[in-house]
Amino acid sequence: VNDVDTPSFLEAVRSYRRQNSWHILKDFASLAALPNETHDLAALRVNAQAIADLFRARGAVMEVVERPGVAPLVVGRVDGGPALPTLGVYAHYDGQPAPPAGWNTPPFTPTLLSGTGVVLPIDPSAGPIQDDWRLFARGAADDKAPFMALGVALEAVRAARMSPRVNLVLCFEGEEESGSPHLADYLQDVADRLRADAWIICDGPVHSTGAPQVALGVRGYVGFELTVYGPVADIHSGHYGNWAPNPALDLVHLLASCKRPDGTVAIDGFYDTAGTLSDADRGFLDGLPRAESALLDRLGLAEAEMPGSRLHDRLMLPSFNIRGLSAGSVAPHTRNVIPATATASVDMRLAATDDPDRMIGLVRTHLQRQGYHVVASDPTAAERRQHRHIARLVPHAGYRGVRASADLPIVRHVAQAATAAAGQEALVIPSLGGSVPLYPVADVLRAPAIILPIANSDNNQHAANENLRLGQLWYGVDLWSLLLVSPLEGQPS
Amino acid sequence: VNDVDTPSFLEAVRSYRRQNSWHILKDFASLAALPNETHDLAALRVNAQAIADLFRARGAVMEVVERPGVAPLVVGRVDGGPALPTLGVYAHYDGQPAPPAGWNTPPFTPTLLSGTGVVLPIDPSAGPIQDDWRLFARGAADDKAPFMALGVALEAVRAARMSPRVNLVLCFEGEEESGSPHLADYLQDVADRLRADAWIICDGPVHSTGAPQVALGVRGYVGFELTVYGPVADIHSGHYGNWAPNPALDLVHLLASCKRPDGTVAIDGFYDTAGTLSDADRGFLDGLPRAESALLDRLGLAEAEMPGSRLHDRLMLPSFNIRGLSAGSVAPHTRNVIPATATASVDMRLAATDDPDRMIGLVRTHLQRQGYHVVASDPTAAERRQHRHIARLVPHAGYRGVRASADLPIVRHVAQAATAAAGQEALVIPSLGGSVPLYPVADVLRAPAIILPIANSDNNQHAANENLRLGQLWYGVDLWSLLLVSPLEGQPS
Repeated sequence: VNDVDTPSFLEAVRSYRRQNSWHILKDFASLAALPNETHDLAALRVNAQAIADLFRARGAVMEVVERPGVAPLVVGRVDGGPALPTLGVYAHYDGQPAPPAGWNTPPFTPTLLSGTGVVLPIDPSAGPIQDDWRLFARGAADDKAPFMALGVALEAVRAARMSPRVNLVLCFEGEEESGSPHLADYLQDVADRLRADAWIICDGPVHSTGAPQVALGVRGYVGFELTVYGPVADIHSGHYGNWAPNPALDLVHLLASCKRPDGTVAIDGFYDTAGTLSDADRGFLDGLPRAESALLDRLGLAEAEMPGSRLHDRLMLPSFNIRGLSAGSVAPHTRNVIPATATASVDMRLAATDDPDRMIGLVRTHLQRQGYHVVASDPTAAERRQHRHIARLVPHAGYRGVRASADLPIVRHVAQAATAAAGQEALVIPSLGGSVPLYPVADVLRAPAIILPIANSDNNQHAANENLRLGQLWYGVDLWSLLLVSPLEGQPS
Repeated sequence: VNDVDTPSFLEAVRSYRRQNSWHILKDFASLAALPNETHDLAALRVNAQAIADLFRARGAVMEVVERPGVAPLVVGRVDGGPALPTLGVYAHYDGQPAPPAGWNTPPFTPTLLSGTGVVLPIDPSAGPIQDDWRLFARGAADDKAPFMALGVALEAVRAARMSPRVNLVLCFEGEEESGSPHLADYLQDVADRLRADAWIICDGPVHSTGAPQVALGVRGYVGFELTVYGPVADIHSGHYGNWAPNPALDLVHLLASCKRPDGTVAIDGFYDTAGTLSDADRGFLDGLPRAESALLDRLGLAEAEMPGSRLHDRLMLPSFNIRGLSAGSVAPHTRNVIPATATASVDMRLAATDDPDRMIGLVRTHLQRQGYHVVASDPTAAERRQHRHIARLVPHAGYRGVRASADLPIVRHVAQAATAAAGQEALVIPSLGGSVPLYPVADVLRAPAIILPIANSDNNQHAANENLRLGQLWYGVDLWSLLLVSPLEGQPS
């Protein structure tokens, strides 16, 4: 990394964080203890203030920007100097819902576990912190770790008596897990405070092998709730079973018509706008380590993934994922009924060139071609009597994916820093499998953006027992320390 | 009805119940207020004692029979005289689970509503009780109404200064909604106290037109929980979606392979043992009123039921009903995951000649033919790595259906009483659509059994807002009063 004695600087950073490791870990646990479920506005406001305070305490100028009824946007800046280039930093402080089912420990009671699963106290009596220890909490990995990593990096740079060689503008969102419905509006409100030469999106995991990773883009996102209607109320399955239509059966056939057993989507036009890969992107994909077999083993899956396909190849295509099914009830609370409705929740990940509205339109057309009368809210009595097949389609707020060019100087700059921080070559992938609303960044802020994950890939993101491996937190501190002091070449200043 | 001046006797019974109507209704509400969810053993014991007390107070000799960890069987007798024939009376005091979702009033806070839906106090200030008023509570119709009807009938016969012309033996169960797993054992324990010439099974609804109804049989029952396995834990739908198999999609295709969109079951051999109808049974079916169109209207369904089929024709066949689907989560608690498992709960109603074990065997074979490794409990890590498709099949306790011959004297006897009590011709149907464990009655007690429903057909049985139309309670009182005083012809005494 240019113009800095990287080894000695990194040693200073590491010395600082080792001396302060319990203090850092306690601060991180306090942040992770704040409930942050994405629909809990009151809780999110508490997170926003805590994050603003975290950065204020480390010299940043912060503001909590509000829109009525919406989780705040936290914006801020760290001044390096007027002649220096400016990096934008995005992260989100909201988390996925965390119903307690499946969690070994309460999702907002951060719990420290050793590499062998022993619960440890979060204080120095546990001994020196090991890289393979993990902190379990909703949001620990997705996406609170970057706040702590960047915050500690600001401390470490000062402790190393270095000055930042960049300006930072900070943009921290609280609606990412809800699909970022107000991000574009917020960015328009504060665009003058968020001018940057390039954005670094702090989200997602590193490679499943543990190798550092830089992603040039993210998949877009759109999803929908689909409800199929049967009788007006649950009815007795004995007295009517075999005669009255069962919406759970209708839903099953409808979903089966959307996606084949081999996992390919059968909705007409679904893959038509996914585009093709550049030679550079193809090269990145072909260079990725063959980690699929180890991954299947970790996930408890048979060696029979989609024929001839590799994980990252599949992530270049749009997906159609049934994330939820609900009808009647299953054991132990079953009732012998024909349920009145059956519902599926579907999330679709989009290629960078797919338009969310178009994709929802394809779904709507598909439902109609299957004979469904498609409604936006519960059908009327007249609609029920007229149409044998009725489906309510409620699209989620969606957003487009983006993919930056591999030629941008920021890509090499960040990959070099990641390589130095991790001590192994950083992988570059054309797109993360996950979705982050980079589209408003590109569209409103008119700057390129790349994604720089720090979390371990087995962080149980979005699921129970989310966790951050502590070695990844230290990687994040080292990485951000390097990015703060390394001159960014080839950018206007 | 033989040998009794039916009109004047009925007038005496009606006069009695009119004079005591509020007292009766309050007693009924007290009984319905006892929580009776079928898995709640402590609550069921309270119900058993209350029902024993109800009949003791009306002159019956009652005993609460216990088996360890099982809801009690309540047995009893009402002595008419040693030379008289004996009727067995079966009802069940447990109810389906009653999760509060969907209920307009709490399921165990019995609530009285006028025919236009106005909440009324359960006391004389509400004015004279109207037939179209309804009492809402779990169990009000299924199956506590018969206890009250028979209890009041015992009072009314005494008030009319008549003596019973039959002996009664009583058998009241608390596990019917769980599939009666211990009924046969219980009946073996007390068979000597339950000798009867014929059994009357008090359960189910009258015809959807409101006409009185006698059923010669019931469908059998067996069901299962079916769980399909994906990754060991929920995983991020972005990072793995399109590549890792989704068990919700697998379940959808598996269920679609079981049952066609037109509602016919595609499991090999499913209809092979359903038998055929006798001419008498065919005649009963053809004589039923054409009520389907009105029923579809009430249920909010389009005029497109299964082609060429009538409700009761369909009920002569075994059914395969998806009563529950569960995977991941749907709005408002969605998470963007590939769920670890997807589960369906299926109940199957069986023709009188179908064997439950054979039917489960057909399902198991079908799953295997679809490429599934079928397990009885969660798969091991080795099984997961070996088999792309794994399904856990957990059968419920099942039982066979039964169908009595239309020629039995008890059929005509009961149909005549029902006709007199209702003031309109009773319908005879070869089988109720619902299931009641008559099989142990036939098998252990070696006596014919027929089903005599009193509840309204729109009672929301098994669903939210279960209710009993009060006119049906009065019908039950009149009917049981007649059955108590009418000599049963053609039976050994």
